[in-house]
Amino acid sequence: MAATPTREDRFSFGLWTIGYNGTDPFGGPTRPPLDVVEAVNKLSEIGAYGLTFHDDDLFAFGSTDAERQNQIDRLKGALDSTGLIVPMITTNLFSAPVFKDGGFTSNDRDVRRFALRKVLRNLDLAAELGAKTFVMWGGREGAEYDSAKDIQQALHRYREAVNLLGDYVTDKGYDIKFAIEPKPNEPRGDILLPTLGHALAFIDSLERPELVGINPEVGHEQMAGLNYAAGIAQALYHGKLFHIDLNGQRGIKYDQDLVFGHGDLQNAFALVDLLEHGGPAGGPAYTGPRHFDYKPSRTDGIDGVWASAAANMRMYLLLKERAEAFRADPEVQAALEASKVPELSVPTLNDGETYDDLLADRSAFEDFDPEPYFGGKSFAFVHLQQLAVEHLMGARG
Amino acid sequence: MAATPTREDRFSFGLWTIGYNGTDPFGGPTRPPLDVVEAVNKLSEIGAYGLTFHDDDLFAFGSTDAERQNQIDRLKGALDSTGLIVPMITTNLFSAPVFKDGGFTSNDRDVRRFALRKVLRNLDLAAELGAKTFVMWGGREGAEYDSAKDIQQALHRYREAVNLLGDYVTDKGYDIKFAIEPKPNEPRGDILLPTLGHALAFIDSLERPELVGINPEVGHEQMAGLNYAAGIAQALYHGKLFHIDLNGQRGIKYDQDLVFGHGDLQNAFALVDLLEHGGPAGGPAYTGPRHFDYKPSRTDGIDGVWASAAANMRMYLLLKERAEAFRADPEVQAALEASKVPELSVPTLNDGETYDDLLADRSAFEDFDPEPYFGGKSFAFVHLQQLAVEHLMGARG
Amino acid sequence: MAATPTREDRFSFGLWTIGYNGTDPFGGPTRPPLDVVEAVNKLSEIGAYGLTFHDDDLFAFGSTDAERQNQIDRLKGALDSTGLIVPMITTNLFSAPVFKDGGFTSNDRDVRRFALRKVLRNLDLAAELGAKTFVMWGGREGAEYDSAKDIQQALHRYREAVNLLGDYVTDKGYDIKFAIEPKPNEPRGDILLPTLGHALAFIDSLERPELVGINPEVGHEQMAGLNYAAGIAQALYHGKLFHIDLNGQRGIKYDQDLVFGHGDLQNAFALVDLLEHGGPAGGPAYTGPRHFDYKPSRTDGIDGVWASAAANMRMYLLLKERAEAFRADPEVQAALEASKVPELSVPTLNDGETYDDLLADRSAFEDFDPEPYFGGKSFAFVHLQQLAVEHLMGARG
Amino acid sequence: MAATPTREDRFSFGLWTIGYNGTDPFGGPTRPPLDVVEAVNKLSEIGAYGLTFHDDDLFAFGSTDAERQNQIDRLKGALDSTGLIVPMITTNLFSAPVFKDGGFTSNDRDVRRFALRKVLRNLDLAAELGAKTFVMWGGREGAEYDSAKDIQQALHRYREAVNLLGDYVTDKGYDIKFAIEPKPNEPRGDILLPTLGHALAFIDSLERPELVGINPEVGHEQMAGLNYAAGIAQALYHGKLFHIDLNGQRGIKYDQDLVFGHGDLQNAFALVDLLEHGGPAGGPAYTGPRHFDYKPSRTDGIDGVWASAAANMRMYLLLKERAEAFRADPEVQAALEASKVPELSVPTLNDGETYDDLLADRSAFEDFDPEPYFGGKSFAFVHLQQLAVEHLMGARG
Repeated sequence: MAATPTREDRFSFGLWTIGYNGTDPFGGPTRPPLDVVEAVNKLSEIGAYGLTFHDDDLFAFGSTDAERQNQIDRLKGALDSTGLIVPMITTNLFSAPVFKDGGFTSNDRDVRRFALRKVLRNLDLAAELGAKTFVMWGGREGAEYDSAKDIQQALHRYREAVNLLGDYVTDKGYDIKFAIEPKPNEPRGDILLPTLGHALAFIDSLERPELVGINPEVGHEQMAGLNYAAGIAQALYHGKLFHIDLNGQRGIKYDQDLVFGHGDLQNAFALVDLLEHGGPAGGPAYTGPRHFDYKPSRTDGIDGVWASAAANMRMYLLLKERAEAFRADPEVQAALEASKVPELSVPTLNDGETYDDLLADRSAFEDFDPEPYFGGKSFAFVHLQQLAVEHLMGARG
Repeated sequence: MAATPTREDRFSFGLWTIGYNGTDPFGGPTRPPLDVVEAVNKLSEIGAYGLTFHDDDLFAFGSTDAERQNQIDRLKGALDSTGLIVPMITTNLFSAPVFKDGGFTSNDRDVRRFALRKVLRNLDLAAELGAKTFVMWGGREGAEYDSAKDIQQALHRYREAVNLLGDYVTDKGYDIKFAIEPKPNEPRGDILLPTLGHALAFIDSLERPELVGINPEVGHEQMAGLNYAAGIAQALYHGKLFHIDLNGQRGIKYDQDLVFGHGDLQNAFALVDLLEHGGPAGGPAYTGPRHFDYKPSRTDGIDGVWASAAANMRMYLLLKERAEAFRADPEVQAALEASKVPELSVPTLNDGETYDDLLADRSAFEDFDPEPYFGGKSFAFVHLQQLAVEHLMGARG
Repeated sequence: MAATPTREDRFSFGLWTIGYNGTDPFGGPTRPPLDVVEAVNKLSEIGAYGLTFHDDDLFAFGSTDAERQNQIDRLKGALDSTGLIVPMITTNLFSAPVFKDGGFTSNDRDVRRFALRKVLRNLDLAAELGAKTFVMWGGREGAEYDSAKDIQQALHRYREAVNLLGDYVTDKGYDIKFAIEPKPNEPRGDILLPTLGHALAFIDSLERPELVGINPEVGHEQMAGLNYAAGIAQALYHGKLFHIDLNGQRGIKYDQDLVFGHGDLQNAFALVDLLEHGGPAGGPAYTGPRHFDYKPSRTDGIDGVWASAAANMRMYLLLKERAEAFRADPEVQAALEASKVPELSVPTLNDGETYDDLLADRSAFEDFDPEPYFGGKSFAFVHLQQLAVEHLMGARG
Repeated sequence: MAATPTREDRFSFGLWTIGYNGTDPFGGPTRPPLDVVEAVNKLSEIGAYGLTFHDDDLFAFGSTDAERQNQIDRLKGALDSTGLIVPMITTNLFSAPVFKDGGFTSNDRDVRRFALRKVLRNLDLAAELGAKTFVMWGGREGAEYDSAKDIQQALHRYREAVNLLGDYVTDKGYDIKFAIEPKPNEPRGDILLPTLGHALAFIDSLERPELVGINPEVGHEQMAGLNYAAGIAQALYHGKLFHIDLNGQRGIKYDQDLVFGHGDLQNAFALVDLLEHGGPAGGPAYTGPRHFDYKPSRTDGIDGVWASAAANMRMYLLLKERAEAFRADPEVQAALEASKVPELSVPTLNDGETYDDLLADRSAFEDFDPEPYFGGKSFAFVHLQQLAVEHLMGARG
């Protein structure tokens, strides 16, 4: 039986997730708005530790300063009374008509300047609320038509924007890091920095790459048919997993934002195993918030909002249990050994070996016999996979 | 603990599956050939009840009559000694260069006639061996370029071929039915009858539609991003699930032919639940062979061949256990009720109700209040889905 | 230079297409509403011949009878003054919260009855306006979770609904046929009748299949990675292309609804060639409306609405010109011959030939030599494809 | 009329492309082997300037030194007599059974050492033949099952390998750069460095990143549903487009390797436009070889091999002509201006402007009016796209 969620599990939810009213391209809302105070109270009750939000989630685009402040104050009151925190904040540069061609990379320079101002203001709020991560999802940074957007220039403008933000938080002494969230498409035909790989590469072109990491979302990578757990492993290799968006997706289609684990269950198992046991010494590879960026099904009432919020956490904890049992099983250890999985951690070269040494090693080439790999030298991967699936299914003891 | 496979489970395997030598577009074989007698003996040992094959799997294309007969005799001997049966046979109209533009629908009429003869000969063999199902996968019936193939005419030629085969088995009194296997692409850029829907529609255009059903393969439908279990449900609705090809696929990509359940595990669970409990009275909806059309991983040796064969059967039995527990759980029954799933079996019209009656029923329209569906009238689908996933994971008692 | 659109070209547009206000899952409207009278006047000016609509496009869901009638009268006035017609009408069973689990196949029986009533009322309007085609797109008929929907029962309910509608139009003497519009997903995770193949198969299970055909949309089939022109060819084979939805899509992703030809240009060329020259005698294979179901880009103002409407028609006419030149080119004719494309129209069997005759024809098998197909007997498809692309590009004289 | 290919166009072909014998997962060869001398002579005749190859293409895996040298000598003779060059060489670490789990990242350390030796030997050959680019496609570096491969460790081993190769060419003084070729899947379920973004990010983790760029293939990026031209633009932004593989792909499916332009024609147009006119001053953005990595259709004979080779070059030259006309059209220039495409090249900040200056600029925020973007401030992208398509189709004068 999976444990009950506690704040130590570091589960967080976007205000826009539990607050999703059901609007989609073919229909309007099926649920009334969710007030932020109710959201905080309820999240606290069910065991979450954090709430995250876009500026426009808390106070509508175009709010007066007073309206904005009132909402911030109401949020703060709820945080104080519950002990919930705001580990991450992000800026909405995609909903208002002004952002119809993007924010940082709109063809319209006035829009780009306005977007920068909106983000700077939101950075101050992030600092005020103690958020340590500032997510940037450039959902409208892209195009439907190739001639409509000069992609190289768009990247230069994106770089210009992030460099300025990096200067700002550095000079202000804010304890905030940035996390870019990639997505291949939707709402634009093609979005800039479509996968976590593209985002990681972009970060290396920045003036302060150390301030910027990524916030990969399960469904976004899977919308490109990519293996999410493998992508996270590459992010960890680069030391750039600054935040994570957990949810579910069933293949290459529109962005579904299902409950975590309600999409590709096997990959979710691999992911939790990686996050919890994939560090260099076998310990946790990621210790930040487990953030759910999902949508309660439009078919469900408010009951479904909270059932789905709880389901996200329960899925994570269940998968964590399964991953622990998997790692602890001696038969699994033996199978990993038989598949030579640990041998991949052994450097290919001997300690201090040079290419001259390698060239002189006849056993590596001249005397090496590739024949036994035909019909033999089995990697026995299917046996290992079967063990993994059986652990996932709780079918081994 | 899942039961050990027995012949009552009706598990069958293609000779080309366990005999797959590892050849793929980027590499040659990694395993030696598997002899048919060894295949039969080993399948018998591990609990299968049937072997299936293409003509060319048993005797190479271009074999002399004597070579062909020798292989048939060897197969028969092995069947006799083990009690294994041949529930299904199929014809290879895709490997030899002569079929490079297809068999039944090659642009080259000589090829089409040769293909028909090859199939007729194989039908006699099917009858001789007692096979009840004759599968037709038209893997080369298609095109890469739109102008290269007149699709309407291709369908007319396909129809002409199947009509002739239907006459043949009818006149000969063979107890054989045909099952068309759809696939969207690979090896052709686009294949004729790309999904089970297209195949079902085509069957209705035949002279003897009652003789022809479908043999849908998990991975083939999933290569088009389609829900396999939902497709099988439609096949059952039409009474056309004549045979089934079980395997695993991880999304829209090349045809992977993984072990059943090693692909989309959730849909595999839904499928087994449907096959075992989806009949009108809640009993089995399909009673034919559970046929595995998969490939043992190229990375594995002969150990992996038999480990993977066993894994297919074990996955099916495990999922069957889980589905039984799911159906038996009172909380699941209550959740199904709350989601109104059983209400879909109640006709929309009252018994004997006409459209005039319906038009006169003010409660259906004039007095019907759609408002409560906003914010209420929850379908509570997420709760039901969470129960399903927990049963799949063995996490409920 | 492509001709200017005229009414003889039979171009029609959905009111919801030119009226699309830019709302998408990540942002609200970027354009004001478009009044129906302005829509009709403008469409008339630019050369269209027809307007189509959902009931809720013309009068909002929940309108009073007076509001509804007022809008109908305003539409009629505009039609009268311009000569535009309404060739097709359809019913919105997907936007209002009441339809959150579908209309004809909602798990909730009250909703199903309400949906039937809404459709019956709309059928009367269709008849009143002289529409000959009644489209049914079941966008909400589906599910996100396999256990949430009994697909077999859903098909039974769908069948019950369409049977009743068939009785109704027959008894009323309405000159109306139905056209089912398939879609694989979005807004539901999986939609019932996901491809045109599935819809064609379903139609054969109806009581009055002759009344029901399909309305396939370019982007919907391409969202499943299927070849649209090939699918249309199968629809024509079955005599079921009752209406068509033209637009553009760039691969497997969310439903883009781009301008026709702005997606997969090569397949659009093949499609227009098929529609215009794919009949049995080489004439038009389809003579119904060329209906555009697209969305003007959210980034554009009202200028973009009319530019995109004009672009749809211009793309069709340009592709028609190109297809005519392609068919007329003697080198293309020679290449088709070399590729044996016309030979596919020759039956595989000789006139009156039986399977006994075929079995007796040694040239078909015993004396047939498959060897020359290795290294020879080229189908020369690439040459033909290159000619097609060059015609598409206007690169041949 | 597109010009005839000349060596100045820098067209090159892989020996494995024109030499493709037609083998695929469902059938054996349909064409005999192509000798390297014939390949060189014929490529020279049709206007190519370069031949590229994997070691195993020229001399079979397991060749003796004498066999290897003989083939090298034969190649050199053909190059001398024709003037063709070898601009690129690559190593086959994927076909032989020994590489069944990969080369640089095989779980088996002996294989990794053997792979390194094979590559070092091939680097010497590359230097000997004057090849300037050394491509690395890690087709077998990956896995089907998540637990079978420790991705972080795989990246460490990959890094170790490339670092060693970088030391080697540096110390030897070879004028050779490396180009990593990404691919998302096939032949492995998931391949390491699945997109060009992932490869670019990886390069930044190397000891000598300046030596390593990428060789992105049209079809490989499109197999992940990504916009190829946009990806190339990002590669150019990073200064990492060291080589390019041109071909055609029709959507997310198996790797098709069609002729360039026979896949997504619109994106091919955008690509050629980018390569030829996308530099900072409007000149060529890439001046390296235009390398075709495609497969002549299996349906075609040797005629199709050379027809398809010629078609690749002709498509490139045709698209180049179209792109030139597009750029030269004053209406296009006006449309680009109206869509503010050039405005994206203007930095968002004024010269020397700081964030303090920006914060003080009330016109950027306090006095900025976002309202006109609703219903106005059209980006007019559809008009621009229509002009692009018409130029592609040769429909504008």
